[in-house]
Amino acid sequence: MSLDAIPIHLIPPGEPGLTGNAPPLLHELLEMVNRLLASGETAAIDLSALPLTPADLDWLRERLGEGEIAVTLLANGESTLAETGCPGIWWVTHHNEQGVVTSQFLEVAFVPELVKAHPDDVALGRDHLESMMADL
Amino acid sequence: MSLDAIPIHLIPPGEPGLTGNAPPLLHELLEMVNRLLASGETAAIDLSALPLTPADLDWLRERLGEGEIAVTLLANGESTLAETGCPGIWWVTHHNEQGVVTSQFLEVAFVPELVKAHPDDVALGRDHLESMMADL
Repeated sequence: MSLDAIPIHLIPPGEPGLTGNAPPLLHELLEMVNRLLASGETAAIDLSALPLTPADLDWLRERLGEGEIAVTLLANGESTLAETGCPGIWWVTHHNEQGVVTSQFLEVAFVPELVKAHPDDVALGRDHLESMMADL
Repeated sequence: MSLDAIPIHLIPPGEPGLTGNAPPLLHELLEMVNRLLASGETAAIDLSALPLTPADLDWLRERLGEGEIAVTLLANGESTLAETGCPGIWWVTHHNEQGVVTSQFLEVAFVPELVKAHPDDVALGRDHLESMMADL
């Protein structure tokens, strides 16, 4: 076996596992927060679609910190929507029914879209309430 | 001591502990949900301000059921904002720092007011993000 056959992994400078792909996301988030404040425009970064290592994600999570609000949504697996230490930036994690993380987003919004009750569902709930009252 | 001095508690018909004060709240909620759907108007019933027994509250909770979304807010004690089985109706419970329930509301809204990030807080978070990025 020649030395050429040994794969070489370049370790980037700084903390092991960090690719340098996370810091630019803070700039992107800052622009998104500015747009939210200026016009109410919401946006999201799909973390699962980016070349981020677990160390990159930990770095981001540490920088953004933890906020006061945590939302749990149970529908075909659990989703958590946690306010970060920067209000308006939410860390959204979707799990499948086996508890495996299927996707992660950073959502910039006053409130994450998934937390809002959909008018169609509210109308169904109203019908349910009406039929329940008829049975009392 | 005459018999007149013995206080008489009238036990209402039906389940023990039920005062009959809970069922009218369902009618009130139905009107509130209809207003939410018609005009987006939100409203709340302060359960702590009404003569409701624990049995009344249990009855209400059972009738309304449980929804898919639960929100936890940590600020001077824990608040929970749980979607009921009727989307748009949220059971909101505030605790003090000792974990004692201090108030309970039924809030009718697409999303409870407390879950929304306030623009002033988002602006503070933006400043925090900016200064953090300057330090990188």
